[in-house]
Order: sequence, then C-alpha cells, then structure tokens
Amino acid sequence: MKLRIFVTLKPGVLDPQGKAIHHALEGLGFGGVEDVRAGKLIEMQVADDTSDAQVDEMCRKLLANTVIENYRVERA
Amino acid sequence: MKLRIFVTLKPGVLDPQGKAIHHALEGLGFGGVEDVRAGKLIEMQVADDTSDAQVDEMCRKLLANTVIENYRVERA
Repeated sequence: MKLRIFVTLKPGVLDPQGKAIHHALEGLGFGGVEDVRAGKLIEMQVADDTSDAQVDEMCRKLLANTVIENYRVERA
Repeated sequence: MKLRIFVTLKPGVLDPQGKAIHHALEGLGFGGVEDVRAGKLIEMQVADDTSDAQVDEMCRKLLANTVIENYRVERA
C-alpha cells in the first residue's frame, strides 16, 4: 500500500524557507506571488495490513513535529 | 488562487533523507515499511491571473531541479 504524508507548518508559525522562496521568485521577476509556505511530502510503501493508528503514530513520533506542524495522510 | 506544488525525486535517484526516515521508523519498532521517499510540498497563494505557463516556469527555474526531480502542480 502506498501512502503520501503531507507535513505543513501550522498557521502562524514563521516559515523562513517559504519566505526565501517567495523572495527568490520575486527576484526572478515573477510578480503576483502573495504567499509561499514550504512543507514536506513523504511517500511510503507499507505493508497492506498497516493500520491507520500505526500510520498516525509514525507521524506523531517521527515524521511531524506536532508542536509546529500539521500532517495529513492520503492512501494511494 | 492557491497552488500546491509537489516536488519528488525521480525514480532511481538516491534518497538519503528517505533512507534515514526508513531506518528511524524501523528503529522505533515500526515494521512493514518497505520504502520511503522524501519530497517537498510548496503551497503558494498567487494572483488569479497567473497562467499555467508562468507556474511551470517557476517550477523549472527555481522550485525543482529537473535533472533529478519531478514536479506536479495542483490548483486548489
């Protein structure tokens, strides 16, 4: 089973990487960009019997820092 | 308009970050993980008149290294 896990910064958390991307896009002449937020995408191939609870635990223990990040799991 | 850009390593490109995540998951006792690939998720708020061609150019010029990475754009 294939999983896609999206890890994004919570609203309000400063995002220097996103700011840098935004600034670089402007430097390259791309107008009209209002905001950029950078996050992570983790694609995993796991055994078919992996439960939602296990995936949730992986996210909370390792993949996302739940103090500042949200995560969303998509089964492909 | 909100854009979500997914940047992933091309198949065959070594992924030390994914390997490290895989190894750490095993260390935490999560069995059944077969493969992990790490990528980037970039969320952008852009002007509504931004064309597909412009977004494509942003990706090719800055957001993705097309030698080793693929990208996919999703309009939300």
